[in-house]
Amino acid sequence: MKPKILVPEGLSDESVVRLSKYAEVLKESQLGSRLDVILPEIECLLVFSWPRFLGSEQIRRMKSLKFVQGMMVGVNHLPLEQLPRRVVVCSNSGAYSTEVGEFAWGLILAAAKKIVWFHGSISSGNTDLGVYRLSPNDVVILKGKTLGIIGLGGIGRYVARLGIGAGMRICALARRRRRERGVVLLYGEAGLRKLLSRSNVILLSVPLTKLTKGMIGKEELALMKRDAILVNIARGDLIEQEALYNHLVANPLFRYATDVWWYEGGAETLRARFPFLSLHNFVGTPHVSGPSAVVTGGPERLAVRNLIRYLSGRRPIGVVNRSEYV
Amino acid sequence: MKPKILVPEGLSDESVVRLSKYAEVLKESQLGSRLDVILPEIECLLVFSWPRFLGSEQIRRMKSLKFVQGMMVGVNHLPLEQLPRRVVVCSNSGAYSTEVGEFAWGLILAAAKKIVWFHGSISSGNTDLGVYRLSPNDVVILKGKTLGIIGLGGIGRYVARLGIGAGMRICALARRRRRERGVVLLYGEAGLRKLLSRSNVILLSVPLTKLTKGMIGKEELALMKRDAILVNIARGDLIEQEALYNHLVANPLFRYATDVWWYEGGAETLRARFPFLSLHNFVGTPHVSGPSAVVTGGPERLAVRNLIRYLSGRRPIGVVNRSEYV
Repeated sequence: MKPKILVPEGLSDESVVRLSKYAEVLKESQLGSRLDVILPEIECLLVFSWPRFLGSEQIRRMKSLKFVQGMMVGVNHLPLEQLPRRVVVCSNSGAYSTEVGEFAWGLILAAAKKIVWFHGSISSGNTDLGVYRLSPNDVVILKGKTLGIIGLGGIGRYVARLGIGAGMRICALARRRRRERGVVLLYGEAGLRKLLSRSNVILLSVPLTKLTKGMIGKEELALMKRDAILVNIARGDLIEQEALYNHLVANPLFRYATDVWWYEGGAETLRARFPFLSLHNFVGTPHVSGPSAVVTGGPERLAVRNLIRYLSGRRPIGVVNRSEYV
Repeated sequence: MKPKILVPEGLSDESVVRLSKYAEVLKESQLGSRLDVILPEIECLLVFSWPRFLGSEQIRRMKSLKFVQGMMVGVNHLPLEQLPRRVVVCSNSGAYSTEVGEFAWGLILAAAKKIVWFHGSISSGNTDLGVYRLSPNDVVILKGKTLGIIGLGGIGRYVARLGIGAGMRICALARRRRRERGVVLLYGEAGLRKLLSRSNVILLSVPLTKLTKGMIGKEELALMKRDAILVNIARGDLIEQEALYNHLVANPLFRYATDVWWYEGGAETLRARFPFLSLHNFVGTPHVSGPSAVVTGGPERLAVRNLIRYLSGRRPIGVVNRSEYV
């Protein structure tokens, strides 16, 4: 008998067909009132955001659940503390590297070249070319500068590779000892301090875990160069919101560009607690980098492939170390 | 006796010292009332913008003038029609490749990722994350797309190289038969049409000459994909202003990003004849890409080096083909 797997409503027919070779594929709408009866038989979950109908009571009743495959690369939104230890949870590791990496470069360049600010200034009627005579700090040249990457997963490695092409020096904070061509690898607390103090551009591309939450606070900001560019492509809560706001106000040459925002009441929101959008040295986009990958179908294909690895007895990729979250 | 050269007021002491080994270096302020007497003896000019005190009458009296070295890469602002045929004019070719190339990438990504639009939308109070659910056309993924480069000089080659790194297909309109690794080269009118119709991103990095002025008009825009991204890092007048405005209005998925603006009365101005800044698919910056290179001192050093090539009897680089301008 094939194992039962519960998949998102929106999963493509193509993916359903592929999975059906290995499992009985179920969607909530197909189960209707039978959902409660079948819950204890479900062995695998494929999830985007966590399904609302799976509360703690339902999770407790999923006695056969062994494997959860996320469609996002971040898993901080999954109820890891409610899942029994036997359940293996996988991130959709690497599924967003290119698209989010491209977006990260968009934010780096938008901040370095002050594109949003210049466009806004002309829009608000400053149409005298002479006004824009440059001070050397206005448009940052990236060649020869140092790019510090915090988190050398798929996105971090993509950004590093383009940075090397642009003639930047690259250093990166990594968790595991490894080699990465053209990248100076740093480790631990001392490595982080070194990266923060020597980098002209700093990219956050690390998962949000209990270890990384608030990792950039007042002290870390104080270590950065006064004219550094900080780019966040990962999760808003890696940074302490109030400390960042104060730092941006106190250091007009410092720039922050982000696609991700802080959580309030468990959900990401564009309504920050401080008026970041009134600052000239802030650039923000509404968490569109990951979704820009989703529409390509790539992340779905990769998640399905990893689920099939599990279903066919091979070792899945991107197994989450739950002790970092719970 | 050393030849006399007239240099800009702001030329650095370092450059003056270097040039003094080969020539008598003069600045306008040092000459004062003797300027008129010395004009007929000046053999070389090093110029940024053309000096105001050198009108057509003064140019006629510069009987010894043999060589003009520009500090900009464009020479369309020099009075080429007034300079006798014996005068060799050199562009500061290659001096801006990295800095303007980086800026070009900033504009490409700002347009592809809609960073200016997203930031502006949040700023104007659209703070509901759900509003930004993406249609596939919103955030353009560059990997696998075609980048068409019109003008394969230093800037075009720089942008091509990074495009290859980002996994794009590159085609380029070139003037001379040559080879360029990873780039499909196209030539002439037929090549231009091919480039315009097949490219997802089109970069203008060609000099403004009598041959290229208005090269992108209604017909050329009509050849482009309806959702193409056109980026102008060269000169505003390469494009017919009214045709572009109408095209942007009629094709909301088409995007135009520019650092350069149209001339009015001989001078570039941010006050365009059409309300481009009211359009969501327009991104504009106030001609800061070249100046961002100037502040590094690199273009001055390169121009001085080329002037020394001339002064020491070697062949200078970047000699302008005046028939393309006059």
